[in-house]
Amino acid sequence: MTLIVQKFGGSSVADAESIKRVAKRIVETRKAGNEVVVAVSAMGDTTDELIDLAHQVSPIPDPRELDMLLTTGERISMALLAMAIRDMGYEARSYTGSQAGMITDAQHGSARIVDVTPGRVREALDEGAIAIVAGFQGFNRDSRDITTLGRGGSDTTAVALAAALGADVCEIYTDVDGVFTADPRVVPKAHKLDRVTSEEMLELAAAGAKVLYIRAVEYARRHGVTLHVRSSFNNNEGTWVVNQAEGESVEEPIITGVAGDLSEAKITVVGVPDVPGKAAEIFTIVAKTGANIDMIVQNVSAAATGLTDISFTLPKADGEKVLTALRAEQADAGFASLQYDDQIGKLAVVGAGMRTSAGVSAQLFRALSDAGINIEMISTSEIRISVVTRADTLADAMRVVHTAFGLDGDAEAVVYAGTGR
Amino acid sequence: MTLIVQKFGGSSVADAESIKRVAKRIVETRKAGNEVVVAVSAMGDTTDELIDLAHQVSPIPDPRELDMLLTTGERISMALLAMAIRDMGYEARSYTGSQAGMITDAQHGSARIVDVTPGRVREALDEGAIAIVAGFQGFNRDSRDITTLGRGGSDTTAVALAAALGADVCEIYTDVDGVFTADPRVVPKAHKLDRVTSEEMLELAAAGAKVLYIRAVEYARRHGVTLHVRSSFNNNEGTWVVNQAEGESVEEPIITGVAGDLSEAKITVVGVPDVPGKAAEIFTIVAKTGANIDMIVQNVSAAATGLTDISFTLPKADGEKVLTALRAEQADAGFASLQYDDQIGKLAVVGAGMRTSAGVSAQLFRALSDAGINIEMISTSEIRISVVTRADTLADAMRVVHTAFGLDGDAEAVVYAGTGR
Repeated sequence: MTLIVQKFGGSSVADAESIKRVAKRIVETRKAGNEVVVAVSAMGDTTDELIDLAHQVSPIPDPRELDMLLTTGERISMALLAMAIRDMGYEARSYTGSQAGMITDAQHGSARIVDVTPGRVREALDEGAIAIVAGFQGFNRDSRDITTLGRGGSDTTAVALAAALGADVCEIYTDVDGVFTADPRVVPKAHKLDRVTSEEMLELAAAGAKVLYIRAVEYARRHGVTLHVRSSFNNNEGTWVVNQAEGESVEEPIITGVAGDLSEAKITVVGVPDVPGKAAEIFTIVAKTGANIDMIVQNVSAAATGLTDISFTLPKADGEKVLTALRAEQADAGFASLQYDDQIGKLAVVGAGMRTSAGVSAQLFRALSDAGINIEMISTSEIRISVVTRADTLADAMRVVHTAFGLDGDAEAVVYAGTGR
Repeated sequence: MTLIVQKFGGSSVADAESIKRVAKRIVETRKAGNEVVVAVSAMGDTTDELIDLAHQVSPIPDPRELDMLLTTGERISMALLAMAIRDMGYEARSYTGSQAGMITDAQHGSARIVDVTPGRVREALDEGAIAIVAGFQGFNRDSRDITTLGRGGSDTTAVALAAALGADVCEIYTDVDGVFTADPRVVPKAHKLDRVTSEEMLELAAAGAKVLYIRAVEYARRHGVTLHVRSSFNNNEGTWVVNQAEGESVEEPIITGVAGDLSEAKITVVGVPDVPGKAAEIFTIVAKTGANIDMIVQNVSAAATGLTDISFTLPKADGEKVLTALRAEQADAGFASLQYDDQIGKLAVVGAGMRTSAGVSAQLFRALSDAGINIEMISTSEIRISVVTRADTLADAMRVVHTAFGLDGDAEAVVYAGTGR
C-alpha cells in the first residue's frame, strides 16, 4: 500500500470551514486506498497571536514556557482535524509531537530532530486509521520537555515522518500551484515547474524562494524523501522535488529557476591589511555574534597600499550587531573603516544543468548589462550563480534574466543539455 | 517549610493583566517563605470557546480528540503564568496534568483520578521553584492519552496535588469572599462563614451551593486536606473547610448555612402497587438512563387501593429521558400514570450541630408555615434537612429560614450547642 504524508499549513486550516475542506481532501486520499499521515500547523495566525500574548505578560518570555505555550496551536488544529475526519466516517487519531516520536535536542524555539520513533503512528496506520500529527514540535528526552522546531517546523515534521515511515511521497500543500521558475508576483511570465532536483530546490530556497524551507528540503535530500509541492485549492499536479541519483542520465534544463532576495544588507570592511590571518580574524569576530553570513567577496589588494576590501552579505536584522562587534575590535583587527549598505538585492539563477554547460555566467552577465543593470558582487556554487545589484533594480533584473534563459511561460521551455560522461 | 497549593479559576486569569495580578499574589506567597504549587484553569471562557469550535467541525466530537483539544486551554494559562512569575524574578515551571503525575482512568470528559505521582513537582519545589500545574486534566496509562476531569476539574486537581504532596493548606481562590451562609444574591443578609466542616461543605455543595464542587470537597475530606476558600481580589481571610475529628469537642453552630436549588424537577409515579420489589423495579428503570436521582419520597399506600405514589427529584436536563424510559415500561411495572413538575425549588439547611439538637426540623417547618410557604417533600441526613417548595417561593423561603436560624449578618451569630457525650 502506498503511504502518503501530507502537510497542511496555517492558512489551509484557518477556520472551521477550511478544516472541513482539508478533512475532505485527506479522506479522498485515504479512500483511494492509501495509508495517510498528516502533519498540520496551527490555525491561521494562532502562533503569532500566542507570541503576542506571551509578550503581554513578559518582555522576554522564558523559552521553555514559550514552547509549552506555542505548541497548543498545533494541538488545537490536529484535534479539530481528527474530529472532522471522524465525522466523515473515517477513523482518525491525533498525536502530539511527543506521542508521534519526534525526539529533539533541548534548544527551545529552534530544536533539531535527533530521532524519530513513530511507533504509535505506525500502529494507527496498521489499524486502518489516518494519523494526524502536530507539526512544529518535538520532545526532549533529557529534560522531558516539549520543544518547538523553529521556522519551517511543520514542513520538517512532515518530511521527518515521511523518512521514518518510508513514505512513498511527502505532499506539501500550499497557496500556490507549486514551485515556480520565479516569484510570479515579481515575474508575471514565470511558470510552474513540473520537477526540480532537491539540490536545485535547496539552492532556490537558500536564494530566497519562499515555497519550501531549506531545512525541510535538506532533510528530504539527506533521507531520500520525494516531495510534491502542490496547491490546497485544486487537484492539479504540483512540482515534484526529487533526489537525483549520481550520474543519472536525465535531460536537465540548464537553468531551472530565478530567485530574488531583498532581505540582506552588505558590509564592507575597508582597508584590511593583506596579510595571512586577517580574513580569519574578521570573520571570527563576525561569527561570535551568531550572524549568518551569505556571500563573501574579497578583491586582490592594491599593490601600492597592500590593503584590500572584504565585503559580505547578511540578513538586515543582523546588521547592527555585526557592525557593533567589528567596531569594537577595529584597533586590533587593523582595518580602516566599515561601510554598510542595506539597499542591495540578491539575484540567483539555479540549475543542475549548469554543471556541464559553459557560458552560463557569460549569458547572465550579458543579459544584465544589456538591461543596464550593474553587478556589484558575484558568488557561485556548482549549480547556482548569485549576483548583487541595487535593490530597486532587482525586480527588473529577475524579469530580464528569466526571459534571457527562456523560462518565460509558453516559450520553448528551456535549453536542454545532455549529461553524458 | 509550609507547602501551600493555590487554585485560580478562569475569571482570575481571563487576560494578560489578570495573569500578572495572580502572578504577583503567587510571588508574595513564595516571598513569605512558603513552598508554592498552583493549579490553574483555562483563561476566561476558553474552554467554552473550544467546545464551540469543536462543534463547528463535528456535531458529536470524538471524546478522545475533544480532551486533546480542551486541555490546550490550561496549557496556555499555565505557561503564561509561569512566564509572568519568572518576569518578576522568581523561578517558576509549568507542568501538564501528565507531567505533574495526575493519573486517571480512561473516561474522556469525566476522568477519575486513580493515582497522583507528582515527582517533577516535588523536584521543582526542592530546587526552590514555584510549580504551576494545568488543572482539569490527567493522563491514562493504558491508552497513553490525555484526559479531562469533568466539572470542578481544576478544584479537584488542586486538592489532589495537596493530598499527594502533604500540603498544609489548599487555597481555592474565587470571586467571592468565601463560603456564605446563603447565596448573598438571594439572601442579602447572608454573611461569610469563618469555618465549616468538610461534611457540612459537602451537604451545602450537594444542596446547590456553587462555590466549591462536591467532588473536590469529598476528595479533600477523604484525604484530610484543609481547604481555604478566599477571594482573589483581596487578602482577607476566607472560609476554612476543615476535617472534623470524631468526638472533637468543638462548639458547633446548629445551622451553618442555607442552600437553594432551582435546577431540579420532580417526577411522581402514580398508583404503584404496594408490593415488595416495585420500588426497586422502578428505580432500576431510572438507573439505566444514567440519571442522578436526588430526593425520594414514598408515602404509605392507601389501605383501600393498595396503591402508593413515589416521587423523586432529578436534574431537569435528565427529565425527558427518564419519562421516556418509564413510559416504555409502564405495562410491566404496572403503575397508573406519571406526573412531571419542573417548577420546584429545593431548600436545604445544613449544620453539624443538628446531630445533637432536637427540634431543628420543627423550627424549620414552623418558620416556613409562618411565612405561608408550603412544604411538598422532605428528606433528611444527619446534618441536613431538605424540603421542596414551589420554585417561585424558594428565594423567600431561603430568606425566612436564614433569619429564623439567626444567620442574618450582624445578629448574634448562631445558637450554639455543646457536643458533650
